[in-house]
Amino acid sequence: MTVTRTVLDRGWIRLEDMMGGDGAVVRGARICYQSEGTSPDADARLIRRLVSSRPAHNTVFEHAVFRFGVKCPLFVGRQWMRHRIGSYNERSLRYCLADREYYVPAGHPEQQEAYVRHMEASFDLYEQLVAAGWKREQARGVLGLAVYTEFIWTVNAWSLMNWLEKRLDRGAQWEHRQYAKAALDIFCEVMPITATAFKEAVLAR
Amino acid sequence: MTVTRTVLDRGWIRLEDMMGGDGAVVRGARICYQSEGTSPDADARLIRRLVSSRPAHNTVFEHAVFRFGVKCPLFVGRQWMRHRIGSYNERSLRYCLADREYYVPAGHPEQQEAYVRHMEASFDLYEQLVAAGWKREQARGVLGLAVYTEFIWTVNAWSLMNWLEKRLDRGAQWEHRQYAKAALDIFCEVMPITATAFKEAVLAR
Amino acid sequence: MTVTRTVLDRGWIRLEDMMGGDGAVVRGARICYQSEGTSPDADARLIRRLVSSRPAHNTVFEHAVFRFGVKCPLFVGRQWMRHRIGSYNERSLRYCLADREYYVPAGHPEQQEAYVRHMEASFDLYEQLVAAGWKREQARGVLGLAVYTEFIWTVNAWSLMNWLEKRLDRGAQWEHRQYAKAALDIFCEVMPITATAFKEAVLAR
Amino acid sequence: MTVTRTVLDRGWIRLEDMMGGDGAVVRGARICYQSEGTSPDADARLIRRLVSSRPAHNTVFEHAVFRFGVKCPLFVGRQWMRHRIGSYNERSLRYCLADREYYVPAGHPEQQEAYVRHMEASFDLYEQLVAAGWKREQARGVLGLAVYTEFIWTVNAWSLMNWLEKRLDRGAQWEHRQYAKAALDIFCEVMPITATAFKEAVLAR
Repeated sequence: MTVTRTVLDRGWIRLEDMMGGDGAVVRGARICYQSEGTSPDADARLIRRLVSSRPAHNTVFEHAVFRFGVKCPLFVGRQWMRHRIGSYNERSLRYCLADREYYVPAGHPEQQEAYVRHMEASFDLYEQLVAAGWKREQARGVLGLAVYTEFIWTVNAWSLMNWLEKRLDRGAQWEHRQYAKAALDIFCEVMPITATAFKEAVLAR
Repeated sequence: MTVTRTVLDRGWIRLEDMMGGDGAVVRGARICYQSEGTSPDADARLIRRLVSSRPAHNTVFEHAVFRFGVKCPLFVGRQWMRHRIGSYNERSLRYCLADREYYVPAGHPEQQEAYVRHMEASFDLYEQLVAAGWKREQARGVLGLAVYTEFIWTVNAWSLMNWLEKRLDRGAQWEHRQYAKAALDIFCEVMPITATAFKEAVLAR
Repeated sequence: MTVTRTVLDRGWIRLEDMMGGDGAVVRGARICYQSEGTSPDADARLIRRLVSSRPAHNTVFEHAVFRFGVKCPLFVGRQWMRHRIGSYNERSLRYCLADREYYVPAGHPEQQEAYVRHMEASFDLYEQLVAAGWKREQARGVLGLAVYTEFIWTVNAWSLMNWLEKRLDRGAQWEHRQYAKAALDIFCEVMPITATAFKEAVLAR
Repeated sequence: MTVTRTVLDRGWIRLEDMMGGDGAVVRGARICYQSEGTSPDADARLIRRLVSSRPAHNTVFEHAVFRFGVKCPLFVGRQWMRHRIGSYNERSLRYCLADREYYVPAGHPEQQEAYVRHMEASFDLYEQLVAAGWKREQARGVLGLAVYTEFIWTVNAWSLMNWLEKRLDRGAQWEHRQYAKAALDIFCEVMPITATAFKEAVLAR
């Protein structure tokens, strides 16, 4: 089941588990009308129609559910978790010692050395504070927003599509968009009819 | 996968699909602390601890997800859908013709005949109105709250436990409690560690 | 503060309380950008821009909150409460005795007498069952979906607009649409800049 | 209306607006039972009873709504926004330039100088990166989690009490607890009957 995509310099997103898929959308729609699908083609047409009129039919997409694992910079994770329809569990820097891993943006050769030196210095200080008896939850105050975090995310297909729409937008932060692109890839692989309809009806607008 | 329990005179609840189970709770908890389970026993102890301090650890239970199918009287369904953390799709009486099926409470022999006669009369009138060109969505106005409905319900284990706690309470409507008891049975079967801990830590209080 | 509109033959919707209004949208938007409005005109332009790109800016509309009181047929209330982002408290037919009030659809003179006779008979039976010792929560099973109910609804402007968009749609049930029209009227009165932008950018599409 | 409490070395929480208060709880409860309060004392007793059996009566507390403004360290804000039932708008470091303001934990005199020197260095580098043409949203990667942020939070009394219960717990991070204490103070001032019942029935357990 696990499908993994690497993202940025050290991040990734992977599908850890799922339930329902395209079939769950059909199940949700057919119970409303107590109709029966006559063929796979009829089901696919039904899904395409539901995606096109998406805002009016959100619940049918909520029976398809995914659990993703994600590793991303803190500033991406902070935006991500603002999406409230979904469940998150994140590695806690109150309890865990932070790993020395941080995102280095490409394309800024002149400042890159100073950037890396500063990030390393922040981990040096962090470790020194912890060694001196500071609580981890206070010592993390010196760690920058480029530090990597890990979390799991359980989300239904409706909420996933909302997130994709917002985070694939050209106005979204480039780093976040890379995760959205990778998630869209996975979505197309495991829920192909809905994902294709979504690309055509929503993203291509 | 499908586990069905009959409820009341003509109703049922069945588990149609699920994701995660006890393992998902462990996954959600261990990522926070970046710990690893050393044995199934350690995992079971972890789950029991999380259930006991449930309000503080809701998200770990949200990675286990169920889809139930339900057939119940409208007055039960109305209460049920007041639980907002979950996804419902119900047979629509705007589009479907209502089946002549209604709940008859046991234990009232003197009034039972009048009750049944009235329910039958309501379906007679309903069909007459539809035949006369009334919209189904208007004609349903004469159908009583004892009429059976069908819906599917996708819900995570956290929200399921909240519903169980409220609907197993002695103050809850008896008819609704029968559905909760049947759902608890199914819960125990498919997510035994969490469900057992829930019975001991929450229901036995 | 209370603004009331009568709806259908015996229903109404009224605004009982509110918080924020157009100003709260501006407050929510300006904190993101740490900008300051230079004039009421600049604020109005900002709101119009936010409404146009509504899905990307939902949270700014969530700081404006309304509490409505509603009296409507049960079949309308059932649909209404499917909108999960909001808070409802409804008169309980488990505890209260139902009032003899029901909706009579206009425009069906031939069947109207039979319809009214049936609704009256259902209340006669209901009262007889209660007098015979049935629990109210069971006796209500004979009451039709046209019976009036009352509830209060606390909802933010974002969720209100979603409801309005769905329930003003030509595909929505006519009876529900009358409530949405009345609510839109009230919305225009108390949050005029947002409501006007919503009518132009969303409803006129 | 505005009630402000200073928190930590440079933070604060203030109530900016509110709706409903104790009266809204009574309104929500009385509609269910269609009862009328005979006196302020009867209303206070009703509220106390509802708070004691809180999980079963959440919706009545949802008609009281608050908007808070908050200034706190990023690591507190990150935890705070994990509470999903509520609405947030935060100053965006994608669009705004970060202010040179950060939290300095008390009680670590030996490391404090190194800590402050590092935080200042991170702002020096941040400004240098922005001046060199880095996007603000990338440059913020060097800013530590102790940096102050500002946001507004619209939340109903039910969700506020859940947050208070979790964040006043002895296991919660000390810094976050200071905000919860200040919010509890404000809560007691503006919704005294509910807040007092909450302290007695929930916090004193």
